[in-house]
Amino acid sequence: MNSLYQNFRNIEPYVPGEQPQYSDRIKLNTNENPYPPSPEVKKVLESYDADNLKLYPDPEATALKETLAEHYGFEKEQIFVGVGSDDVLAMCFMSFFNSGKPILFPDISYSFYPVWANLFNIKYETPKLNDNFEIVKEDYYKENGGIVFPNPNAPTGVELPLSEIEEIIKHNQNSVVIVDEAYIDFGGTTALSLVNKYENLVVVQTFSKSRSLAGLRVGFAVANKQLISVMNAVKNSYNSYTLNSLSINAAAAAVKDDKYFKDTVNKIIITRENAKKDLHNLGFEFNDSKSNFIFAKHKTVKAKDIFEALKEKHIFVRYFNMPRIDNYLRITIGTDEEMKALIDFLKDYLSDKC
Amino acid sequence: MNSLYQNFRNIEPYVPGEQPQYSDRIKLNTNENPYPPSPEVKKVLESYDADNLKLYPDPEATALKETLAEHYGFEKEQIFVGVGSDDVLAMCFMSFFNSGKPILFPDISYSFYPVWANLFNIKYETPKLNDNFEIVKEDYYKENGGIVFPNPNAPTGVELPLSEIEEIIKHNQNSVVIVDEAYIDFGGTTALSLVNKYENLVVVQTFSKSRSLAGLRVGFAVANKQLISVMNAVKNSYNSYTLNSLSINAAAAAVKDDKYFKDTVNKIIITRENAKKDLHNLGFEFNDSKSNFIFAKHKTVKAKDIFEALKEKHIFVRYFNMPRIDNYLRITIGTDEEMKALIDFLKDYLSDKC
Repeated sequence: MNSLYQNFRNIEPYVPGEQPQYSDRIKLNTNENPYPPSPEVKKVLESYDADNLKLYPDPEATALKETLAEHYGFEKEQIFVGVGSDDVLAMCFMSFFNSGKPILFPDISYSFYPVWANLFNIKYETPKLNDNFEIVKEDYYKENGGIVFPNPNAPTGVELPLSEIEEIIKHNQNSVVIVDEAYIDFGGTTALSLVNKYENLVVVQTFSKSRSLAGLRVGFAVANKQLISVMNAVKNSYNSYTLNSLSINAAAAAVKDDKYFKDTVNKIIITRENAKKDLHNLGFEFNDSKSNFIFAKHKTVKAKDIFEALKEKHIFVRYFNMPRIDNYLRITIGTDEEMKALIDFLKDYLSDKC
Repeated sequence: MNSLYQNFRNIEPYVPGEQPQYSDRIKLNTNENPYPPSPEVKKVLESYDADNLKLYPDPEATALKETLAEHYGFEKEQIFVGVGSDDVLAMCFMSFFNSGKPILFPDISYSFYPVWANLFNIKYETPKLNDNFEIVKEDYYKENGGIVFPNPNAPTGVELPLSEIEEIIKHNQNSVVIVDEAYIDFGGTTALSLVNKYENLVVVQTFSKSRSLAGLRVGFAVANKQLISVMNAVKNSYNSYTLNSLSINAAAAAVKDDKYFKDTVNKIIITRENAKKDLHNLGFEFNDSKSNFIFAKHKTVKAKDIFEALKEKHIFVRYFNMPRIDNYLRITIGTDEEMKALIDFLKDYLSDKC
């Protein structure tokens, strides 16, 4: 190898969940929404004047920011939008985590956090969740370069009560605290109510889960104007035009159709609560998930064995071969039919095993 | 200001061209294509099954990479795709410019290069174009951490002959050389023919200009497989799912409609050559542009005055208040009608002034 290759980035990328292509697949492995997006999205695509695509999109994504601002009760200048919440979170890391001090996030958490920290040369420490997979707020009362955690946490589904989040924010007024609310709409309590109270809080949400628009790539952050202006400066130093014209318009239409959104989310919550009963009856143990997935282990049968058996039947769930969680499965909540297929298979499979 | 703000990124963002909203505007300031995209793009949008948007897009953007690979005669593994060529170029900077040595790009060039270098803490030097605004290849025969230049150059429109590009690549086999071909389709000679000959070459192109899809945000790079695999690892460490499902499919449809592409490009070239004659007759001086814009100064009247006068008539061109080029206008090639409006106004305006 010649010296050309010496100065390339040497990086271990994040490995996303499988995208199996079988036509009979039941896909419960990447926390997608089993229901289609609002019919208003379809209308936007069908009626969009494709001739407009010759022009650059609005770099401010005004139509989307205004819709989000009105919907959630903020000013437009408090909203940042990006190519999925991954883009938004990466921009947060670049914008706010430059102190040289280690940032803090839980040991069991979204597996992209250490990847971004490595990409941007940010030191980090990972306080351990307790044995119930709960964040221990006192672990975050120490000097740090910033804090980030999902709420509800992934892949555990466990929610940290808002009062404890507020304690963490209060104890860290010289650091930015990012609450990553990818799954908040499925029954959790959002920290958006704290945004105008604490200048060090950034709340990040996504259109990929509760709004059924993973394929459109839209996420957003809400914070005070000064933090958002820093994120905009970084974003405009990276790519002025990140959100395309179609995504801006289709995402805005989805937010406006609030009834569809609520109906869809409620269906998933009902299915989740039923799945909890069924899984419990089959001998699974899990925390009380407030997300669109259940993170479960079986009392006697190994997670990896169940994972492989499901896969053979083209039922895909997520298995993480990592310390502390290598006996768990993360099962996305699908439709009632999909969950029935899962439960029926597990009944048979486990009755043979147990 | 408390210490919260000390560790934020402090950055001067790139300032994109104005997006004036007047209904009678003639927009010749951001090098967009005056013609709509291929009708095949419209068909993709109208027939797209919006229900699919509930799922994540293909993180490999296989449909688009395969189409590009077949069209340009490469293997799929030699293609990288991103959210416009700005995203692709930013990924190149992160992937390849990590030596600590300064990278090289021309003093008059795409104004985003120094912005990325600052964002990623990359040192740089900017060899001067000669007085004819040409790149002097010998300036790039010195130790460096990488090389990037647009061809044709922006905002000058001047093409560097392929033989001289090859000399630069040959003299820098331990550095990655990025040829940024945003404007190549308007009459330049692409360096794609050199990709399989030199392992240190990356060619970057965009759908925003010649393919009339600025609003869709798609760009791509072609290089040897090893370089592309590094870019993919960096991209997957930043955001696994950058291109949305609609952009992947619509961009592939645009590439397949090669007749429309060629017809549109040829119309713009004819309009450009006519505009050169008209501008010359009005006393403008310029290099022989091979792009979809003309970078011109007037023999006697100041560029800034012409810029302001045009703006008052809602005719928008680009003026850069920067050393060496502050007496030039960058005029995007519009339709024949748009160029006639420009020329007619200039005739009147200049006859009063000269």
